Amino acid sequence: MEKIKPRILSGFMELLPGEQLRFEAMAEKLRRVYSLYGFTPLDTPLIESSEILLAKGGGETEKQIYRFTKGDSDLSLRFDLTVPLARYVAEHANELSFPFRRFQIGKVYRGERAQKGRFREFYQADIDIIGDGQLDIMNEAEIPSIIYRAFSSLGLKSFVIRINNRKILNGFFEIIGESDRAGDIMRIIDKLEKIGRDAVKDLLAEAGVPAERCEEITGFISTPTSLISETLKKYLGRNEVYDLGVDELLTVLDSMRSFGVPEENFAVDLTIARGLDYYTGTVYETVVTAHPEIGSVCSGGRYDNLAEYYTDRHLPGVGISIGLTRLFYVLGENGYFDSERIFSPADVLIIPMTDDIQPATALATGLRDLGIRAQLYTEKKKFKAKIGYADKLGIPFVIFLGEDEIRDGKVSLKNLRTGVQSSLTAGEAAGEIRKFTECSSGAAIIKENVNDN
Amino acid sequence: MEKIKPRILSGFMELLPGEQLRFEAMAEKLRRVYSLYGFTPLDTPLIESSEILLAKGGGETEKQIYRFTKGDSDLSLRFDLTVPLARYVAEHANELSFPFRRFQIGKVYRGERAQKGRFREFYQADIDIIGDGQLDIMNEAEIPSIIYRAFSSLGLKSFVIRINNRKILNGFFEIIGESDRAGDIMRIIDKLEKIGRDAVKDLLAEAGVPAERCEEITGFISTPTSLISETLKKYLGRNEVYDLGVDELLTVLDSMRSFGVPEENFAVDLTIARGLDYYTGTVYETVVTAHPEIGSVCSGGRYDNLAEYYTDRHLPGVGISIGLTRLFYVLGENGYFDSERIFSPADVLIIPMTDDIQPATALATGLRDLGIRAQLYTEKKKFKAKIGYADKLGIPFVIFLGEDEIRDGKVSLKNLRTGVQSSLTAGEAAGEIRKFTECSSGAAIIKENVNDN
Repeated sequence: MEKIKPRILSGFMELLPGEQLRFEAMAEKLRRVYSLYGFTPLDTPLIESSEILLAKGGGETEKQIYRFTKGDSDLSLRFDLTVPLARYVAEHANELSFPFRRFQIGKVYRGERAQKGRFREFYQADIDIIGDGQLDIMNEAEIPSIIYRAFSSLGLKSFVIRINNRKILNGFFEIIGESDRAGDIMRIIDKLEKIGRDAVKDLLAEAGVPAERCEEITGFISTPTSLISETLKKYLGRNEVYDLGVDELLTVLDSMRSFGVPEENFAVDLTIARGLDYYTGTVYETVVTAHPEIGSVCSGGRYDNLAEYYTDRHLPGVGISIGLTRLFYVLGENGYFDSERIFSPADVLIIPMTDDIQPATALATGLRDLGIRAQLYTEKKKFKAKIGYADKLGIPFVIFLGEDEIRDGKVSLKNLRTGVQSSLTAGEAAGEIRKFTECSSGAAIIKENVNDN
Repeated sequence: MEKIKPRILSGFMELLPGEQLRFEAMAEKLRRVYSLYGFTPLDTPLIESSEILLAKGGGETEKQIYRFTKGDSDLSLRFDLTVPLARYVAEHANELSFPFRRFQIGKVYRGERAQKGRFREFYQADIDIIGDGQLDIMNEAEIPSIIYRAFSSLGLKSFVIRINNRKILNGFFEIIGESDRAGDIMRIIDKLEKIGRDAVKDLLAEAGVPAERCEEITGFISTPTSLISETLKKYLGRNEVYDLGVDELLTVLDSMRSFGVPEENFAVDLTIARGLDYYTGTVYETVVTAHPEIGSVCSGGRYDNLAEYYTDRHLPGVGISIGLTRLFYVLGENGYFDSERIFSPADVLIIPMTDDIQPATALATGLRDLGIRAQLYTEKKKFKAKIGYADKLGIPFVIFLGEDEIRDGKVSLKNLRTGVQSSLTAGEAAGEIRKFTECSSGAAIIKENVNDN
């Protein structure tokens, strides 16, 4: 029979077992953190009607979308988790309790040009808090504490949550009489970190902004966090939107501290806009200190109306999104994973050394009853191949069960990392294995290099 | 602005928060059980090239598939998890360790005619053990113990794992000289439970089977488990395949007992074939005792060659699949969920009663540090609306934090199920909440009715 070459589609990611277990551990940490804040998991279909998904329409999204027909239906694969959320909340609004806090970790699809580290199928890990008609500012303050706990739980220490408020930017541009050019200006100031203050000034001038305003804009947006309240105060009382934005930002900063986010893990950054037409209040970006070139690994913000295309109901919200597949990829590429931590599909491999394997099956069942991941190895292979199997999978322990052990009511437990082998009762062996796995499952996934700190 | 009606596609399932949490709890139980046996999670793309997915081709599958083009690529959504597994194992064979044990809980797509309880997007929860060239029979014996633990962990007690061996059927048909009609006969005897012995005999006669053989076939396949070894022995020594099948089945039965599967949870059923051309050894079906009309909720078996369309490598395996979405649906329909167990997105709702919410944020952070799912309620609503929110979401506890409490270093903890309110330190409150949640998270999901037992 002629064979079809087995190959995954270009731009799609799949992992070998060890890496998959690492990815699962990372996703599980995020699920736990999101759950600690009262977010409920949501799972919407991968496919929606194109009419729903493309209600907003336009732009890059439409070109990248996976769209097809089945029967009479015009269908599309979701390209983010926000549009399905909007559809879900609009459809079920009467059955939900608001504020509605949901998280969703799911795959989304974008037919991007294939390139290294860019995927056409990837996971997003989103949280959103949706209010019915209104939503308190405290929700905007709580979000950074969730980002902080999420990355800390992975073991990442050196990261900064950058915060801004869109009302400040919008108000400021009104104050200096540059509202008409606000979009252009925001696109330019977004480049401040990359190209520097002088280059930004040049670009602003090219865009037609008068010289003294270029100076004023770059001065304003370059304000460090330590001087932020001073700078912001200078423009107070001249524009209502601006004043409200300043009040919101200071409230958020204040509350973040009370939520326990350390000073070194956040900063005000007045250059952040996160697109032009969606966010209306606080906006967030998160950068890994040693690798700003990666870009933001967790972004989002406050929006005024989640589901305007589907319902008249006014549903303001705030949310953030982690591009989980990309984050996993860049952390790996940059050596952020703890290489000493091996993710293994089992805690112990049981190798029966007698023809009658009844004692081994009973032992396996007993260990599993205790929550220990036990694999029974019954293939007819040489002894060395059996040990090699455990070794290759990173299984930390092997139990040999031979005639002597069975007669004495013992097992031989070998720790494959230390090489130490001991004769123990099944209960003692279970204790040893548990000591190791409990310690290992609590461990961080990321280990920062010393020179990254 | 004209609104687009928000609606999920027909034949697709999504759940409200409480039900979604229940579904997640169920999936998590399965993940844990699968992990206890050394299965490693796998996550392959939802999309594969059509050439890969349809390599086997033909039949109903091809008509139901979601197939489309993107650029020059002919793509399809996976319709099961087995074909992607075959592609994965063939592609990565040199990087994997065999036996390769993997589980996958993922969505698959079939454009079936929409009807109640049938879904076009649904979860399958699969495990497979793949050998390289060979795979020991003990793996076939271990599978029922996994099925047993999986359903038991959900709280289901009254179910039967039905077992057969394809070699017995194939050998038996050779012995009685009915190999040519084996396909037809298997399709007919599959109906034994539904239509009864006499009707099966009639159908066999209609299919051209001589009368005395009809009698012999129905007698053979109706053998109860208690008489199985006696009946099987009668035909021994006349056909090699048959003899091997008998040996395998008796070995599997014997080992299942040593794996601790209780007698009442399994049975030999010689009518089970599970399709004609894929399975070659042990086959499994699982029925819920009180609801045989649901059909098998967990099926699978031993196959000889997983990836013959993609590689010359000989990869025998054994696997089972649970149609998780359908199982969830039928359990719900038949009242199998413990109605007293409420799935809530948070363990406690913290309601600050002062303007300064700093003490409340600190308390929330502290509880979260202890692993308690704490939601802070900061919306400006009437007191009754706040309590109503907790109630509607099924949140078991509310903490009030007013001036008195803050001054005394206490919190007011109210258990919404008992109505009891107590003044406690934060640590004591955490202890109370944990006592409740630990008990609740260990509880079964399914509660059988007395008359089902």
